[in-house]
Amino acid sequence: MADLYDKIVELARRRGFFWPSYEIYGGVAGFYDLGPLGVALKNKIVEKWRRFFVKDHSDHVVEIETPVIGPSRVYEASGHVESFTDPIVSCSSCGRKYRADHLVEEATGESVEGLSPRQLTEIIRRKRIRCPVCGGELGEVKVFNLLFRTQIGPYEGDIGYLRPELAQGMFVSFKRVIESMRGKLPIGIAQVGRVGRNEISPRQAMVRLREFTIMEMEYFIDPEASDPCPVYENAVDEVLRIRTYRDKLEDNPPREYTLGEAVEKGVIVNKCLGYWMAVSKRFVESVGVRGEDMFFEEKGPEERAHYSSQTFDQMVRVSRWGWVEVSGHSYRTDYDLSRHMKYSGADLTVFKSYPKPVTVVEKRIVYDRAYIGRKYRAEAPRVMEALSRLDPEEAERLLRERGAIEVEGYVIPGDKVRVVVEEKKVTGRRIVPHVVEPSFGVERVVYAAIEHAYREKEGRVILSLPRDIAPFSVVVLPLNESDEKLVEVARRVYENLVREGFDAYYDDSGGIGRRYARADEIGVPAAVTIDYQTLEDGTVTVRDRDSWRQSRVHMSRLPAALRQFIYMGRSLDEIGVEHKGEQS
Amino acid sequence: MADLYDKIVELARRRGFFWPSYEIYGGVAGFYDLGPLGVALKNKIVEKWRRFFVKDHSDHVVEIETPVIGPSRVYEASGHVESFTDPIVSCSSCGRKYRADHLVEEATGESVEGLSPRQLTEIIRRKRIRCPVCGGELGEVKVFNLLFRTQIGPYEGDIGYLRPELAQGMFVSFKRVIESMRGKLPIGIAQVGRVGRNEISPRQAMVRLREFTIMEMEYFIDPEASDPCPVYENAVDEVLRIRTYRDKLEDNPPREYTLGEAVEKGVIVNKCLGYWMAVSKRFVESVGVRGEDMFFEEKGPEERAHYSSQTFDQMVRVSRWGWVEVSGHSYRTDYDLSRHMKYSGADLTVFKSYPKPVTVVEKRIVYDRAYIGRKYRAEAPRVMEALSRLDPEEAERLLRERGAIEVEGYVIPGDKVRVVVEEKKVTGRRIVPHVVEPSFGVERVVYAAIEHAYREKEGRVILSLPRDIAPFSVVVLPLNESDEKLVEVARRVYENLVREGFDAYYDDSGGIGRRYARADEIGVPAAVTIDYQTLEDGTVTVRDRDSWRQSRVHMSRLPAALRQFIYMGRSLDEIGVEHKGEQS
Repeated sequence: MADLYDKIVELARRRGFFWPSYEIYGGVAGFYDLGPLGVALKNKIVEKWRRFFVKDHSDHVVEIETPVIGPSRVYEASGHVESFTDPIVSCSSCGRKYRADHLVEEATGESVEGLSPRQLTEIIRRKRIRCPVCGGELGEVKVFNLLFRTQIGPYEGDIGYLRPELAQGMFVSFKRVIESMRGKLPIGIAQVGRVGRNEISPRQAMVRLREFTIMEMEYFIDPEASDPCPVYENAVDEVLRIRTYRDKLEDNPPREYTLGEAVEKGVIVNKCLGYWMAVSKRFVESVGVRGEDMFFEEKGPEERAHYSSQTFDQMVRVSRWGWVEVSGHSYRTDYDLSRHMKYSGADLTVFKSYPKPVTVVEKRIVYDRAYIGRKYRAEAPRVMEALSRLDPEEAERLLRERGAIEVEGYVIPGDKVRVVVEEKKVTGRRIVPHVVEPSFGVERVVYAAIEHAYREKEGRVILSLPRDIAPFSVVVLPLNESDEKLVEVARRVYENLVREGFDAYYDDSGGIGRRYARADEIGVPAAVTIDYQTLEDGTVTVRDRDSWRQSRVHMSRLPAALRQFIYMGRSLDEIGVEHKGEQS
Repeated sequence: MADLYDKIVELARRRGFFWPSYEIYGGVAGFYDLGPLGVALKNKIVEKWRRFFVKDHSDHVVEIETPVIGPSRVYEASGHVESFTDPIVSCSSCGRKYRADHLVEEATGESVEGLSPRQLTEIIRRKRIRCPVCGGELGEVKVFNLLFRTQIGPYEGDIGYLRPELAQGMFVSFKRVIESMRGKLPIGIAQVGRVGRNEISPRQAMVRLREFTIMEMEYFIDPEASDPCPVYENAVDEVLRIRTYRDKLEDNPPREYTLGEAVEKGVIVNKCLGYWMAVSKRFVESVGVRGEDMFFEEKGPEERAHYSSQTFDQMVRVSRWGWVEVSGHSYRTDYDLSRHMKYSGADLTVFKSYPKPVTVVEKRIVYDRAYIGRKYRAEAPRVMEALSRLDPEEAERLLRERGAIEVEGYVIPGDKVRVVVEEKKVTGRRIVPHVVEPSFGVERVVYAAIEHAYREKEGRVILSLPRDIAPFSVVVLPLNESDEKLVEVARRVYENLVREGFDAYYDDSGGIGRRYARADEIGVPAAVTIDYQTLEDGTVTVRDRDSWRQSRVHMSRLPAALRQFIYMGRSLDEIGVEHKGEQS
């Protein structure tokens, strides 16, 4: 596997999956472009995510879109202005800046996760760690905030930040969204969009970017509900590989649990958190990563974000960097909504109906309005307001002890005021929802899909992407590009497939073997060849990218046959008539 | 039409199309959220654009994705750091800042487009224009750069900007993209993505945003080609309403031209520019704006961006703001690629094959390598390099006049060097492509689609969006939500439609009339009702949003019938059996 990454990078550049941005200006670390095939693959992966997370749950999950740029107040409330930082250290000789924890880990081989800047500075001093480039002395470790900062409008104090996650958009607009749904909890609000994280020195290509795309859902739940997750049963038997924080500390490998077991044993603290982990496992499998190449890793208290009470990372194996996180699963509790309630003053609670109305006993002050009106005239409203503010218990005490109520200087005699006890039916109460969040980094999923699809066969590259996410679904080829009749039929077949909604392309350049090879390399699942038999009987050859086997299908049945082959996982045998053996 | 905008804003908030962002923090001008229905509508409009601009031209148009944040060098090269500005003026009393040209236009009623800050300052002084809020005196007019500025990484000098347009991403990565295509010109590179423009004081809701989404294509052409636009003939008869700059100055209305006429008469300076204008007209019609509600307006020399030699804006009529631009069409010439070649040193030319090889006559200096090697020893390479730099014409003159060549102090006698004349076959040459650009603001198209779909009928609202872009395609309703049998069948029909890929929802809340009304209001083209006849004969009622007519279709035929109704524009009569008359 040593050079698999290099092979993929070469393929990605040459055929147009991805490459570093701004190359003609020497590049800028942490930025990548998606080329034509990369965008097509990404769009299909996003659409698949939308199917798994939004459309399959469309009775209570919706998607919204909020801006990348937000005012500073939002990120003060969210805690990012204070806490979204990495430790940084500068060389006092050459001025280079480094991520201090990574520098110390590389120099000592030990994990320093969660240590403070002062502790890191001490280690640097004690172990005499110096600038890895010039050997100069390192300064004090400081904190560097990873938010990209800008100014909104022409006034200098109006700071804005690029969002480092999508979540705050869902929290800030939570009220509007639930008002537009006739929903009760749980409610999921999903989003797909760009985020920015101003990493100090990103060096891991597509796996550590300063700007990337997230697909994320905030799933708002009733923390007290006996059944917070109505869809839970649909995934209760899904098998998850989980490495708890404790297993990590004890150096144990991940263990297998069904979702039901993991929740019952308390390995996953919340049913909804677990449900979306199970959906995430299915989703990542559906883009071509096998179960044994992924697991969920629980983060320790020092490793979790500031808002989270339990977090799992969904890890996928890749060649160059070992295990990388493709999604994060956080139980964010009511942290965010509560903070935004505090910072904005808005009411972000949800009305929770009781299963049946509850009877509560309430005391209320009742007074003689006519008496107060006559006695206090213009001041009467003020008196009534004062009475309404008075605690009924206090009113009872005053009546008991003094036979009258004196409030804010006004005296109302005992026969004009009394405290009544009333029974009241209450149908529910307002609560602050809790939140569980599954959040995917799209570019990492795109990269993982390409790497896990990469095969070599007889010295040739095949990108065995799941058929339904391949950038192109089908290529149409005239067997002989200089035969006008074949070309004419081939163009007609191609145009018909495009009209039928297939992502098809037409290729008439070079020998047929070379054209098959070019198509295999970018993962085109089906190649349709128009040959001399086509002119006789109207059948075309359909070639399977993975097996290189071929079958004949009549042109009139081609769209239906390809739909079954590409989207329903049918084999060549099932869609056509077997014709000849393996052929490249 | 006076209060149509207010009605749409109310509908948009209540049902979840769009609303101002950050409302709980008092809002920030120029930022809008898309709610669940807004995202669904936007995604369908983007997908439709992709069909018109990319997929229908997939043999030579591709889509890529480049970052929002770019290093300063890119926007120095593009000219935005220098030229992407608006005039700004501050009140010296209250400190408020205004867009100076708008302020002057509002105060005087005259257009001041293209005037310099000094000229604007003079008008403010001469006409005694004062602060519209506090009446204070206004200062000097300055320029305000509309780029959102940030810092990339931890070094303070490393300025980055948010892109104000997508185009620079396509120009900077142009070389990589054409290398990954086996293409010759024309080549289109498209992109959909977020951009930021730090407007001084945006006040036009969804129509003037500080952050929005663009769908754009850079179409790279050979400026010398006799046939620069191979697809031109497909649109040559399309009728375009165009108001030239001259007609604008003379206060004439737009005139109708076929594309062919407009190009022949020189109204549109380039065939490719015109072709994409015609496609843009078809695209905007396909989202529901009629031909008479749109025209193309040519911009004058003062109104065009710094890079453009001809620009048209595609204008669409909306209630509150009159005519607004939904797309821009610029002939950008080779400005951008040439600038990036100069700033980066990279070669962004394209090899252009001649129809047949051309013979050119070349002079070349030939010398006796052995002689120079023996005579100059270690210095020989330097002598040879000097000879290679020498102009052959100059070498001929020296030989003629002196019988020897003296170059950089070295003398080579006439019998060791000569100038030969050679004929050479040249198959083509490198050119810098020109660019035409159709560029859409997505949120404006979304808004225009909603406004042009808005109808009222018998006091109720119907959003008559084209069926194929409606956020939901179909709603499934049990006639009586408390009849278990109806509910069971309705759930099954709903789940089947979801599985078949329809954007469907299920509604069993409230009377059937109210449910139809709710569906009409958000533009659901088809309502499927499960009633008592369904239990008898397996047919369901399909109701048309626009006519309120109904027809019966058998459940087994429902997906196919709905596909014809929604995507192929078939009527109820064509998909089912007419059953009863109009019914709300």
